[in-house]
Amino acid sequence: MPTFRLILEYDGTDFQGWQRNPKIRTVQGTVMAAVAEMAEEEGVVVQGASRTDAGVHAMGQRGVFTVTKDSIPAEGWRKGLNRLLPPDVAVVQCEPAAADWDPRRGATGKHYRYSLINRRGRSPLVDRRTWWRRGVLDVDAMAEAGSQLLGEHDFSSFRAAGCTSKTPWRRMDSIEVVREGELVHIDVRGSAFLQHMVRILTGTLVEVGHGKRSPAQVAELLAARDRTQAGRTAPAKGLTLVSVDYDGVRPPETVDAGPAHGQT
Amino acid sequence: MPTFRLILEYDGTDFQGWQRNPKIRTVQGTVMAAVAEMAEEEGVVVQGASRTDAGVHAMGQRGVFTVTKDSIPAEGWRKGLNRLLPPDVAVVQCEPAAADWDPRRGATGKHYRYSLINRRGRSPLVDRRTWWRRGVLDVDAMAEAGSQLLGEHDFSSFRAAGCTSKTPWRRMDSIEVVREGELVHIDVRGSAFLQHMVRILTGTLVEVGHGKRSPAQVAELLAARDRTQAGRTAPAKGLTLVSVDYDGVRPPETVDAGPAHGQT
Repeated sequence: MPTFRLILEYDGTDFQGWQRNPKIRTVQGTVMAAVAEMAEEEGVVVQGASRTDAGVHAMGQRGVFTVTKDSIPAEGWRKGLNRLLPPDVAVVQCEPAAADWDPRRGATGKHYRYSLINRRGRSPLVDRRTWWRRGVLDVDAMAEAGSQLLGEHDFSSFRAAGCTSKTPWRRMDSIEVVREGELVHIDVRGSAFLQHMVRILTGTLVEVGHGKRSPAQVAELLAARDRTQAGRTAPAKGLTLVSVDYDGVRPPETVDAGPAHGQT
Repeated sequence: MPTFRLILEYDGTDFQGWQRNPKIRTVQGTVMAAVAEMAEEEGVVVQGASRTDAGVHAMGQRGVFTVTKDSIPAEGWRKGLNRLLPPDVAVVQCEPAAADWDPRRGATGKHYRYSLINRRGRSPLVDRRTWWRRGVLDVDAMAEAGSQLLGEHDFSSFRAAGCTSKTPWRRMDSIEVVREGELVHIDVRGSAFLQHMVRILTGTLVEVGHGKRSPAQVAELLAARDRTQAGRTAPAKGLTLVSVDYDGVRPPETVDAGPAHGQT
């Protein structure tokens, strides 16, 4: 009963999120159908590290599955699944794994990137992966506001009403805000994230970037533990799960075909 | 009878090229429908600088149109058209123009970019705008091969069979090949281009990048004036019309909202 773990990349635009649901097109359901076809076995579950929302993209989602068939090596699974999968999802890496490897519980950190296009008019070429905001964003003020959120906090102010996590406490390791021409990227690294947390954070930092809130006010709204005091939830399409970390469990993994490509 | 000139950006994936044709979805037809709606006038033609092929993208296509209605200023046209146009095409700039301004005949140069994703497996996040090639590409050899094509030449070896240009002579001003992580960009600037010229050039340079041809052989195949000696035609989806130049006719135009965004 070999077990394989995956790094998955997908354009989330045409998926209704990660989580399988027989009535809709999801990433998990699509990958499971391809695994079932290669394995010639029904009911093989592909567990993921993160239940990304509808419209959210991934460069470094993690998955794991166990099959009965033991005749296919890891590289055979990678190539075969990529032939079966549609153009908007692919296996970047496939490796043998221990039978009990859990991509969700084993994760020690995650890196998300939120990308904005900041110019006068909308941009068709980056529309699927960015949120369009007019009016020059002050990225230094946004970075300063982000720095108010570092460390362990009760992030109730940045949590969706429907979030089912048992605790609102999370550890925020870093928030970087960088401009790249007309694009602005918000890179967020932390232990794990509440539902919509990065998107509410983005909506709030954009208000700071437009001078509608001060960085100090962001510290206040964090302390208030009140969702109604934070900014709007930024649209899903600007968000990408860049990577999931497993420090201490196994050596850091890297994709062996050069550095990560540009984010736009 | 005011005349306006446009800079247009589009994702060519879901268009059957620029050229209008009532039976299919084209960029020209889509923009003309939006202009007709705002102008409340039938039959207003939007002329473009370049008849981009099906699947080819643009950041800097140029267009021009003349309407009877004189109550809408240029900025009103830009905003109004962007509200009417679908997400995959937008007006980046709109300015008043002389009645005889011709975006095609007035052009003195064009800049195209061809982008490749060069890694082991395909990439869903850049799939719509890149050609996937496995095997490390030697960008220095590709740049050297490109330099063999600079200057004025008979480019019959890099011309589609169906090309209707009167002459195969063109002026090539620069060819740059740069790696950006897993992406490789081929930036080509010249007077004008024959049908499929940049795509045949790309197919040929990729063979050089894989060591299947030497840069010197590229000079030979140019001299042969024989399409069958060049490489395959690279797919349309990797090609973007970056800008059209009008030096000497008017001062160079720039988009006033910051530098051009990333190409991926």
